[in-house]
Amino acid sequence: MMRGRGLVNGFAMMVAAMLAAAPLHAEDGYALWLRHAPLEGEALANLRAAAPIVPVVVGRPDSPTLAIAEAELRRGLAGLQGYDRPRLTRDSTEIVLSCGKEQGDGAAGFGIAPERIDGRPAVVIAARDHVGCLYGSFALLRELGQGRPLGEIRLSEAPASPLRMLNHWDNPDGSVERGYAGRSIIDWWHLPEKLDPRLVDYARANASIGINAVAVNNVNARAFMLEPRYIAKLKRLADAWRPYGIRVFLSARFSAPMELGGLPTADPLDPQVAAWWKAKADEIYAAIPDFGGFLVKANSEGQPGPQDYGRSHADGANMLAAAIGDRGTVIWRAFIYRAEDSTDRTMQAYAEFQPLDGQFADNVILQIKNGPLDFQPREPFHPLFGAMPKTRVMLETQITREYLGQASGLVYLAPLWKEVLDADTGRGGTVAQIVAPVGMAGVANVGSDRNWTGTHFDAANWYAFGRLAWDPALSASTIAREWTAQTFSRDPETVARIGALMLEAGEFVVDYTGPLGLAHLMGTGHHYGPAPWVCDLGRPDWNPCYFHRADKDGIGFDRTTGGSQALAQYAPAIAAQWSNPATADPRYLLWFHHVRWDALMPWGGTLWEALVRRYDRGVKGVDATAEEWASLASAIDPERHAAVAADLAIQRKEARWWRDASLAYWQSVNGLPLPSGTEPPAEPLSRYRQRTFPEAPGGGQ
Amino acid sequence: MMRGRGLVNGFAMMVAAMLAAAPLHAEDGYALWLRHAPLEGEALANLRAAAPIVPVVVGRPDSPTLAIAEAELRRGLAGLQGYDRPRLTRDSTEIVLSCGKEQGDGAAGFGIAPERIDGRPAVVIAARDHVGCLYGSFALLRELGQGRPLGEIRLSEAPASPLRMLNHWDNPDGSVERGYAGRSIIDWWHLPEKLDPRLVDYARANASIGINAVAVNNVNARAFMLEPRYIAKLKRLADAWRPYGIRVFLSARFSAPMELGGLPTADPLDPQVAAWWKAKADEIYAAIPDFGGFLVKANSEGQPGPQDYGRSHADGANMLAAAIGDRGTVIWRAFIYRAEDSTDRTMQAYAEFQPLDGQFADNVILQIKNGPLDFQPREPFHPLFGAMPKTRVMLETQITREYLGQASGLVYLAPLWKEVLDADTGRGGTVAQIVAPVGMAGVANVGSDRNWTGTHFDAANWYAFGRLAWDPALSASTIAREWTAQTFSRDPETVARIGALMLEAGEFVVDYTGPLGLAHLMGTGHHYGPAPWVCDLGRPDWNPCYFHRADKDGIGFDRTTGGSQALAQYAPAIAAQWSNPATADPRYLLWFHHVRWDALMPWGGTLWEALVRRYDRGVKGVDATAEEWASLASAIDPERHAAVAADLAIQRKEARWWRDASLAYWQSVNGLPLPSGTEPPAEPLSRYRQRTFPEAPGGGQ
Repeated sequence: MMRGRGLVNGFAMMVAAMLAAAPLHAEDGYALWLRHAPLEGEALANLRAAAPIVPVVVGRPDSPTLAIAEAELRRGLAGLQGYDRPRLTRDSTEIVLSCGKEQGDGAAGFGIAPERIDGRPAVVIAARDHVGCLYGSFALLRELGQGRPLGEIRLSEAPASPLRMLNHWDNPDGSVERGYAGRSIIDWWHLPEKLDPRLVDYARANASIGINAVAVNNVNARAFMLEPRYIAKLKRLADAWRPYGIRVFLSARFSAPMELGGLPTADPLDPQVAAWWKAKADEIYAAIPDFGGFLVKANSEGQPGPQDYGRSHADGANMLAAAIGDRGTVIWRAFIYRAEDSTDRTMQAYAEFQPLDGQFADNVILQIKNGPLDFQPREPFHPLFGAMPKTRVMLETQITREYLGQASGLVYLAPLWKEVLDADTGRGGTVAQIVAPVGMAGVANVGSDRNWTGTHFDAANWYAFGRLAWDPALSASTIAREWTAQTFSRDPETVARIGALMLEAGEFVVDYTGPLGLAHLMGTGHHYGPAPWVCDLGRPDWNPCYFHRADKDGIGFDRTTGGSQALAQYAPAIAAQWSNPATADPRYLLWFHHVRWDALMPWGGTLWEALVRRYDRGVKGVDATAEEWASLASAIDPERHAAVAADLAIQRKEARWWRDASLAYWQSVNGLPLPSGTEPPAEPLSRYRQRTFPEAPGGGQ
Repeated sequence: MMRGRGLVNGFAMMVAAMLAAAPLHAEDGYALWLRHAPLEGEALANLRAAAPIVPVVVGRPDSPTLAIAEAELRRGLAGLQGYDRPRLTRDSTEIVLSCGKEQGDGAAGFGIAPERIDGRPAVVIAARDHVGCLYGSFALLRELGQGRPLGEIRLSEAPASPLRMLNHWDNPDGSVERGYAGRSIIDWWHLPEKLDPRLVDYARANASIGINAVAVNNVNARAFMLEPRYIAKLKRLADAWRPYGIRVFLSARFSAPMELGGLPTADPLDPQVAAWWKAKADEIYAAIPDFGGFLVKANSEGQPGPQDYGRSHADGANMLAAAIGDRGTVIWRAFIYRAEDSTDRTMQAYAEFQPLDGQFADNVILQIKNGPLDFQPREPFHPLFGAMPKTRVMLETQITREYLGQASGLVYLAPLWKEVLDADTGRGGTVAQIVAPVGMAGVANVGSDRNWTGTHFDAANWYAFGRLAWDPALSASTIAREWTAQTFSRDPETVARIGALMLEAGEFVVDYTGPLGLAHLMGTGHHYGPAPWVCDLGRPDWNPCYFHRADKDGIGFDRTTGGSQALAQYAPAIAAQWSNPATADPRYLLWFHHVRWDALMPWGGTLWEALVRRYDRGVKGVDATAEEWASLASAIDPERHAAVAADLAIQRKEARWWRDASLAYWQSVNGLPLPSGTEPPAEPLSRYRQRTFPEAPGGGQ
């Protein structure tokens, strides 16, 4: 055997100790905002001194939900104190759960307050039901996780709306339509025998932010998911999630009575069809007594629906609602548009649904996207909000970033959602107020990726959706700070700097993809990257050129009275303000107006100059974000810092691509030179047009 | 606020302490066999007393590979000692790495021996190059991980073959053909900017078992993976894996000169085509100087190839080999069969390739599947082994369980691989001896699932493949024990019991899917579940009926001189033995013979009775495995115990389904009653035939 002898000395041994193996458990993002990293400094000393304990209470009505609440408190408190496991002292502060009855959905919320019990310190979490106590337990940990002293936490909260829902566009084969974080977290194939523990952690994360409903499958639904073998699978999920206060919903294919039941029709007014659905609902409720109900996409993008039989959306929804009865709800999507309809696509949902106001059954909810088009980076609020006062309506947002860079970069969606929630409909309140009696749904962005959401920062969007559904009055900034403190660092400067990055990020994406109200300029099919030149797709309203309407003279979609008249679908005061380019919100300028390239903007310069400036602002904003993130290296664990840095490297590349390709194309249309001092596109337009991405993710395959 | 007061007493507080939060890091399988769980009892005391340290050696030529070896040793030793991080004492046993030159592929292996240095205890790992030292470091941890005392470990090993390879059938869109463990671990979309840390852990795991080559993409290759943007992605992988001694190979589409280069032909004898490939190879080698080479599936299952131009496989392979030159290798697959060819499908590869022996360039390797059909649960060895003495040949096995239940149940493949490796070809040695000068490839079973392989036990197949490629003389039993001790438990009884389960498992799958040499009876497309009745597919050799040939009188494929004459492709001694049903290996009986249902078996009873008995043995075997596993609950952590129990619940269901559907079908053909005492199929044949699984995984979508 060969022999060798290294030099060993004290210095080297010291270095060896420092170079000790990497931590056995790298920061991989799996813990999300439930990381419960040890507190620091005074906050740590305070919590350790308080020595909180969560006693096992003997003789109290127990439940799986309370057991979870207690376990979460123990786990979280131990983590915050930097302990492996709870420690007991004689001077412990007792965390008392006073939780009312087992049944209940937590709608009454919870209170948290410090008290003294038998002369000793305590913190009482009180609620009317066990789910309320679970919410309170997570809220206590959230406050502690931001460094607040245990004895000073006083909260009294209740959710703004009864329905706080995630819609999964997950397919039974494990693919996810518009999913950018791996495969579906639901392994349908191996259910019901095998329940991935990840699905319990998913429920924990949802419960911690108050999400209480999950539609488990894609709205482009497969009929076989209503077969008995799938009901058994769904039951396993429902049983696992019930203690976390989560009800399951199923996306149902309207033509299932034909595909599964062998009926010759799916006409909602056919008694056999109604009977089939009634029997199917009974079958599901026998397995899952608290089944939430059906989510339905009908007569939209090729899905079957009641209009196939000359019936209305109300006819279809009400038939299903009757099958379900008072056991649950039918959520009917307002996202519809038709090939045969040459109306401005953004007008079709209003035109079709508004006349049906008052015709829907009590247990039908109309689910309306935030804007009238399709989850673009920025859209004005949907004109149906406020326009159907006799109908239960809810908001549908997209957490997954189909049109906002997918799973790369840093994009925080809360400011864009807030823009919609806070918008005054002119018809009895803001969008938040209009939907408050029902609630909100978000198209989920989670997948099988270890960090759940593809990028670490996308978890902030999941978190923010839940927090806004619970309380739409929360500011995007507050939510960003909460999330950052629990996820990355409690250092105030770090929280402030990351918060600042997050708040600006969405605007940068708007700037480099669709500034000043432009929209729907993305690549065909995969919706990835720029393709404003596309004008040859089978249907007019699939083409970017349909939406931007750029020509030699100007750009933008005229939706005023001189154009498609879409503005008339809004309340008169709103319509009047937006009808005048001078008073219109510049964020929606080209959404509603065709504007000359040389038109002077109120803030100075021409439209063309303003557009170019916006594109540049977006690109430079991402560059600055990446630099700021790089300078945060010492404040963030190396694993997650490196991952986000890589995300931002991709986003810098993509931002420049969007800007360059878009400018090159607009120049090919308007023949205008770039404003002086502007960097020209890196490549000729033809090169951008040639790029193809046959392997782009998200198509649900 | 509501108030409540629980009863707290000493007992309750004790219970509270016991009910402490679940461990922060559940056993999720991610660590694989590199778990390095703390030793127990005397072994722990011994290792702590030895206090091994891995010094940082000053002044020695350093390299990324040595840094990894040192870090792995530190991490592993700390884990085995139950420490968070290495501890230093004055009486430490030094682990000395004596590693020769940096360059080298570890082919000379390593030695490990205890020594005394300057009067103090030491363990020396010596090798001719740094990769050899890395292999030695992992080997030391492997021995320690089985509880062997540090001072008694003496090893001197070198790999049996130069090429120990994983072939990924991973597609650039993240799907995996015949992948049952989630998506591809390679996120092509976000490369080169973003390298998932999982890919480094993948390299660690491979290096720990001596795997030194990875073909990164599906042999059904896309041409665009040869574009510059993909070469940049591949370079990032190569750079990350190089320190682990792993070279990357790329599956290349033969028609790429047309699709990417715009040439009118891909004729391998066309000078422009050869020039295109030469330029492409130069481009790759400029980025990746140690690029392994191309893996090619040509003229098989619709892939383009040299025969499209009237050229031979040798013409095609040699043209690519010339492009690569002495920088690397072309691996050409022998798995071919053609629609136009009515020859017995199992004969086509031999018929096509054997005559080409001696015509392949020196840097071409012919990759031959273990058997002549297609990775069936059991096949006789491929007749090409030994039949091409002037050609470099390697073995291709399938680690992913396309035809063996996919990712559920417990199936340990090493015994089935050993059956092939140990088979005497009658032409100069066993299969292991024939391929020793080149090596082995396994179609990878890893994916994005947290435990890498879908089920915990499938990691044993990855492990076993690497160990057998390193040393095909290892027994399946030894490898099972090694893996179990490092993965689950070192308790000797537990190791013995789990080892026993593993060794029997493969035979049970053969029994309930294709006993006595039956094969290719699976469902269409997804290859899931039984479908022996299928007889209407477009090509004869896609149909199960083509392979089983069951009729009223008998069952089996006559490949004797009276039949397809496939036996004539084997060495005369083998052919003679197998030609006689009485002397044929019963494991391959119906592979080579059409046997009457009422034929008497040498071991008693009729063929029909023997078949039924085999099916029953498979089902009962899985039942017993599940019961045995249940009884191991106290010996295994609850997370992994529950996961495997669920896997086995699925396998029980599937085993019964295979048995019942198969028996029902054979009865419909032979009209025979079941032997007395046999349980009849649970459902009528028609019900089994009706089952459809449109969402079955593994199709690469």
